[in-house]
Amino acid sequence: MAPSAPARFSVEQFYVPLSLEKVTDVMDEFLHFAMYEMDRLSYLEINLKYYRLMQKDTEMQILMCDGLLRSEALMERLRGHRFDVVLADPIFACSDLMAEVLGIPLVFTLRFSVANTMERLCGQLPAPPSFVPGAMGKFTDRMGFVDRLINSIFYLSQDLIAIKLWEEYDKYYSDILGRPTKFCESVGMADIWLIRTYWDFEYPRPFLPNFKFVGGLHCRPAMPLPEQSLTVFKDMEEFVQTSGDDGIVVFTLGSMIQNLTTEKGNMIAHALGQVLWRYGGEKPKTLASNTRIYDWIPQNDLLGHPKTKAFITHGGTNGIYEAIYHGVPMVGIPLFADQPDNMVHMKAKGAAVILDYNTMQSKDIVDGLNTVINDPSYKESATRLSRIHHDRPMKPQDEAIFWIEFVMRNKGAKHLRVQAHRLTWYQYHSLDVIAALLATVVLIIFIFIKTCSFCFRKCCSRSRTKSKSE
Amino acid sequence: MAPSAPARFSVEQFYVPLSLEKVTDVMDEFLHFAMYEMDRLSYLEINLKYYRLMQKDTEMQILMCDGLLRSEALMERLRGHRFDVVLADPIFACSDLMAEVLGIPLVFTLRFSVANTMERLCGQLPAPPSFVPGAMGKFTDRMGFVDRLINSIFYLSQDLIAIKLWEEYDKYYSDILGRPTKFCESVGMADIWLIRTYWDFEYPRPFLPNFKFVGGLHCRPAMPLPEQSLTVFKDMEEFVQTSGDDGIVVFTLGSMIQNLTTEKGNMIAHALGQVLWRYGGEKPKTLASNTRIYDWIPQNDLLGHPKTKAFITHGGTNGIYEAIYHGVPMVGIPLFADQPDNMVHMKAKGAAVILDYNTMQSKDIVDGLNTVINDPSYKESATRLSRIHHDRPMKPQDEAIFWIEFVMRNKGAKHLRVQAHRLTWYQYHSLDVIAALLATVVLIIFIFIKTCSFCFRKCCSRSRTKSKSE
Repeated sequence: MAPSAPARFSVEQFYVPLSLEKVTDVMDEFLHFAMYEMDRLSYLEINLKYYRLMQKDTEMQILMCDGLLRSEALMERLRGHRFDVVLADPIFACSDLMAEVLGIPLVFTLRFSVANTMERLCGQLPAPPSFVPGAMGKFTDRMGFVDRLINSIFYLSQDLIAIKLWEEYDKYYSDILGRPTKFCESVGMADIWLIRTYWDFEYPRPFLPNFKFVGGLHCRPAMPLPEQSLTVFKDMEEFVQTSGDDGIVVFTLGSMIQNLTTEKGNMIAHALGQVLWRYGGEKPKTLASNTRIYDWIPQNDLLGHPKTKAFITHGGTNGIYEAIYHGVPMVGIPLFADQPDNMVHMKAKGAAVILDYNTMQSKDIVDGLNTVINDPSYKESATRLSRIHHDRPMKPQDEAIFWIEFVMRNKGAKHLRVQAHRLTWYQYHSLDVIAALLATVVLIIFIFIKTCSFCFRKCCSRSRTKSKSE
Repeated sequence: MAPSAPARFSVEQFYVPLSLEKVTDVMDEFLHFAMYEMDRLSYLEINLKYYRLMQKDTEMQILMCDGLLRSEALMERLRGHRFDVVLADPIFACSDLMAEVLGIPLVFTLRFSVANTMERLCGQLPAPPSFVPGAMGKFTDRMGFVDRLINSIFYLSQDLIAIKLWEEYDKYYSDILGRPTKFCESVGMADIWLIRTYWDFEYPRPFLPNFKFVGGLHCRPAMPLPEQSLTVFKDMEEFVQTSGDDGIVVFTLGSMIQNLTTEKGNMIAHALGQVLWRYGGEKPKTLASNTRIYDWIPQNDLLGHPKTKAFITHGGTNGIYEAIYHGVPMVGIPLFADQPDNMVHMKAKGAAVILDYNTMQSKDIVDGLNTVINDPSYKESATRLSRIHHDRPMKPQDEAIFWIEFVMRNKGAKHLRVQAHRLTWYQYHSLDVIAALLATVVLIIFIFIKTCSFCFRKCCSRSRTKSKSE
């Protein structure tokens, strides 16, 4: 940040010709697709629908880019600040383009792109489909033949979709810069990729020197629960303490789901014991007296509370990381986006059971809770993940700060950039070399056979001549 | 180390039925091969000769393994110590086997194996030959088609040699453990690989979570030059100061070369100005008055001296790292082993020029020194490498210590181990998946063609029948 900046943060607003309604509509369509349609569509239909939705997203994103990059006044102000670095999530387009236009280095902070297309194709992150499952694919790193086949098809199909979608950006980027520019190459110019996971969550996989895994950088030790300050939480600590040795369960399905159907709400409520439930909807009728509903809960402080035995979660990364940080086993009720895949990670690492939101019954929730609370392996796994999370050379926040400041100090981090960026896909995979080697082998065999047959004919004709003359 | 260990280090000796003469002979044969024979042999001859030399090395190594693993008394003492970790360089075999027998975790410290066969095949380190040059291959990470072709052949030939050589170890390991055991799988069980380079030296490349780059961990700030304490260095600081603004040059060809030919010695001496030369041989006749010869020099302190302008080096990794640490440009006279490849790294990064030991003349040394001293780009590059070396999240020594202690605390680091270890080579590269996909495509095309031709025949025969009946 420029030293003359008056406050710690300064926010610039810019105009985008997009109604909130339009944005919400697309968002709702995405949600509906992910939660209800995906289960009953074929693989091809899912991909076609996903492609159409992403086209709408691309249109909106380009409008947002326009609001930023075509605003001369704003760009002039940004230039005037002489920033040292752009820090952005590449899920939103054009931050790399802005860095290019402003002529300053770029640091990405990213959770993932679908099937890691962006990290793989633009960032050159190596990912053999045989043991690196694509993000959202719900595989672990232990795949049999069929899983590996499906994972490969997942990579291929998502690559095709991404490459097709990026054509729109290619046009836009070329237009802004006034020279032919590829979106993916521009994204690949990022100096550092801060990936918001770590080996407590991620399956071990190959990566590159400019990929830094800083998962859990938002986590912090638990604070005492509010007792007096906020009336809404007035007696939270008291309520938690009444659980005695049984302890409590923390329950939230995140901020995207404000309302369940009354039926679902009642069904869930029926299953719960001593629970703090973050829920914005109508209070279910079957709610037990030892379940409390709040519009918002101090989730991190509750997860870090010694009485907390389990966490019922939709499987958002932030919540999972708070549970890992505090070593709390989980019951996952994943809804959409990366949530199902996230919960597969936690299940594979032995720290969670997964329920199906659409088919689960009260009994399943009770069983799930009993499993993660009473089978000690879940608590052990959660504790192990917590140990991995804490026992690393540097706190994730410090590591992220180090690399952002490194880029600011050194005007980039080009020494961490692999030369794979200058290769085509067939050069990268040495297909031209393999073709040349195979051609050589074939040529040698061909020459060998021809020579042999020539010699053979010579010999035969000589012996024939000989026998004739005899 | 066991807490009851009386001293900080305790050394165990063991008997190996090998004469020093035999070891020296093999070493000399290696040296002669690397320094004089390699240039005049064909690629095939080099590989055959190398294979034969490595067979001798394998024989000797297995004798050394025997001395350790078949000594019941020694193994019993080692068991009694209850060590927490084995720390070893895998260039010497059987440390992994010892860790397995003792049932304790294993940390490797490694500079490289030829063409990185061990890291790639046993450690599962990914290395696309298109932009990751094999160690000793003397390529950079910017390779054209021919370079990539040769690098691929280098990988392939070295892999074949390694796999063939490891068969001896397979037998030995199986014999010791009493069950079929592969050497490469045993090596692959290492929890952490501490690689003794970093991105100041290494070309950026993919790596794995359990590979930690701790290059330069032996480097330290320069101490003042000895003035009084050691008579041999009595006036070293004074001598350095007499150089005035011109500064000094530090010169060593390492500890392996004790004697040059008189001719070479005179030729080199003729070229040198204000130089501190570490050299154990006969004093050359043409030595200038401002060149001093020492049996041993405080190399790190000299390289860190503000008067030092350049470093003439054989290109050993330790010396190069001291030069990087202090930001000193280099003139490389590589002799054998990894030295030529090391110097290619430094040249590619703009911090060195390279001379050919066999063909160089006095003038070449003078020119080389003039270039790295007077062309500011060399000093700038050396300074940049020094900045990269120092500006990292953790000192390399601290990072190495952290991971060794991590393994001791957690009895391993299995969460960093990729599942690639359980795949065959064709599974790893998804060749079975590609075959299945290709077969499906071929089948679909076949069915399509058959169906078309069947329909076509039906139509034709119908129209023929029709035209006949007409």
